[in-house]
Amino acid sequence: MGSALIFPLSANGVTVKVVGTPFDREIIDECIRTGRNPKVSRPFPAGISFHYFEEWKDIVPGSDFVIGGISSYGAEWFLEEVLSCMPADIPVLSVVKGLRVGGDRVLSTWPEYWEKQLAAKGLDRKVYMLGGPGIAQDIIDGEHTVTTIGGEDPGVLRMMKECLETDRLHVSRTHDVTGLEYAVAIKNAYALGPAIAIGLGRRKGAERPTGVNAQAAVFFQAAREMRRILRTVGAESDCISMGLADLFVTVEGGRTRSLGILLGEGLSMAEARERLKGVTLESISAVKSLYEGISILAKRGVMTSYGKVRMAEFPLIEHLYEVLFHGKDADFPWKRFSFDLS
Amino acid sequence: MGSALIFPLSANGVTVKVVGTPFDREIIDECIRTGRNPKVSRPFPAGISFHYFEEWKDIVPGSDFVIGGISSYGAEWFLEEVLSCMPADIPVLSVVKGLRVGGDRVLSTWPEYWEKQLAAKGLDRKVYMLGGPGIAQDIIDGEHTVTTIGGEDPGVLRMMKECLETDRLHVSRTHDVTGLEYAVAIKNAYALGPAIAIGLGRRKGAERPTGVNAQAAVFFQAAREMRRILRTVGAESDCISMGLADLFVTVEGGRTRSLGILLGEGLSMAEARERLKGVTLESISAVKSLYEGISILAKRGVMTSYGKVRMAEFPLIEHLYEVLFHGKDADFPWKRFSFDLS
Repeated sequence: MGSALIFPLSANGVTVKVVGTPFDREIIDECIRTGRNPKVSRPFPAGISFHYFEEWKDIVPGSDFVIGGISSYGAEWFLEEVLSCMPADIPVLSVVKGLRVGGDRVLSTWPEYWEKQLAAKGLDRKVYMLGGPGIAQDIIDGEHTVTTIGGEDPGVLRMMKECLETDRLHVSRTHDVTGLEYAVAIKNAYALGPAIAIGLGRRKGAERPTGVNAQAAVFFQAAREMRRILRTVGAESDCISMGLADLFVTVEGGRTRSLGILLGEGLSMAEARERLKGVTLESISAVKSLYEGISILAKRGVMTSYGKVRMAEFPLIEHLYEVLFHGKDADFPWKRFSFDLS
Repeated sequence: MGSALIFPLSANGVTVKVVGTPFDREIIDECIRTGRNPKVSRPFPAGISFHYFEEWKDIVPGSDFVIGGISSYGAEWFLEEVLSCMPADIPVLSVVKGLRVGGDRVLSTWPEYWEKQLAAKGLDRKVYMLGGPGIAQDIIDGEHTVTTIGGEDPGVLRMMKECLETDRLHVSRTHDVTGLEYAVAIKNAYALGPAIAIGLGRRKGAERPTGVNAQAAVFFQAAREMRRILRTVGAESDCISMGLADLFVTVEGGRTRSLGILLGEGLSMAEARERLKGVTLESISAVKSLYEGISILAKRGVMTSYGKVRMAEFPLIEHLYEVLFHGKDADFPWKRFSFDLS
């Protein structure tokens, strides 16, 4: 997503300097040599400069803002090596997707966690974030995309929006950072569901193929569980709708789709990972943190606007956890996806 | 959908008698002759009997329940010719999808309207209904489907569920008939949106194809408007999730999808209708009644839990109405699908 945003920024005449993490040396080599990131389908626009990690402290001062294009696997590193050393007056827009398990809140978004850790060091920084619904490839291809940026200061959000918005990239603004971050993080877990349903239909020796109704049945259960979680954390209504649209687009075209289909087809988790080697699969950590977080909340009997958190109300995330981490077959407990008179 | 339900009923050993409307004489002829409905992809199971409309009053007495497998275009006829003459003790399960404009409520569901009209004739009848998320073809093919039946009496709902539920058809029960009916009716209108986005991408001479992000952008706006409407009528949370899953499945595989894609490709409404001749397009009446209903509520300045109804908050339904009824090009007012700080 970090690479994708270079395209609209450049189209708007914004000067973009790309800095790799210490793990990206080879990619930066390649960018400098050829003007393209080997993982990105087309060359970057002209005029972009590429830099090794060591250079960041020289490059960042004087920037309007910094985009943190890292995955959830780099979130702790980003806190220590970048956010903690960043000049105080430069806003940061994060595209990280994920939740962190631990602490008083049990589950927290990365911006929440970062801000708290920075505050403990005496650093007052609000992190801005960018979320769905949209996949990076379509932004690169200049297709119509509605995306959302969240954060505290309306002026900073306006500045970021002006840099990003094009005739094809439509940017919403919200103060509901928690709702946005949760929506983006949990859809990565839940999108595995309908994708598995597609794979089940392709399974060798399947008695019958599964059709769109099977996907819809799992989409329904995903929507129910996502709404429960989003309302529990107080997400505003636009972010709930955004989360469900993000679920839709991730089922339609994201990397999570590929993993789900392989599992549905009957591959083991190890086999599926082998096939998708080199692809960052955020859905795996999303399922883990969500399942662990809900389990802890359920054990503690935490009250929400929906009554006590009960694991029984999250049969889909429970199933996904068993499939990903305990070798359970991916076929669903379908009957648990219907509801009855209350 | 009426024809589709014959398959699970028959699998459960329920005796099914199919009665055609006066407009279905030729189909009933064909069913008697060949055991199949020419509009349905496979023959009916053995043991089903087929009857002309005149026979219904002889057949219905003694039945456990009657399924009204009619479209919204037959809703007034169904009230006059069937519901008004039906024995009082036989429950009716309707699969009709649609809203009716008129009366004090401005927009009402068909069950609401029927019950009111019957009450005015001194007839006390509650109508039961069946809704998504699911398309008929997948039920016919025996694929996993979660569907929902709604109504007042838990015992009647249990009886209907026992007749319909199989190892592949999973039946939820709800008392929230209004939420269920609204969800089912309005998704037929809103599913045109993402389907148009698919068609836009195939449009001849399109500068660029549209990708999944464009569908997601319209899905997002559809989800926002549907949630607004469903919460306004007091739909319960399971029915809101069901409505969004029904939106998903209708975009993926329903008839509304075909119409939307043709419009997106650039065909006029007349050309699209010509291509889809013989197909019942409930989305057309769904868009019309929804647009007209919201317009009236907005003009009256009706208050809801969301504040006053304002047409400006429904840019997608407004656009679809202009496309379907005033020849507007199907390409979207994309910028209206983003939101801003409130």
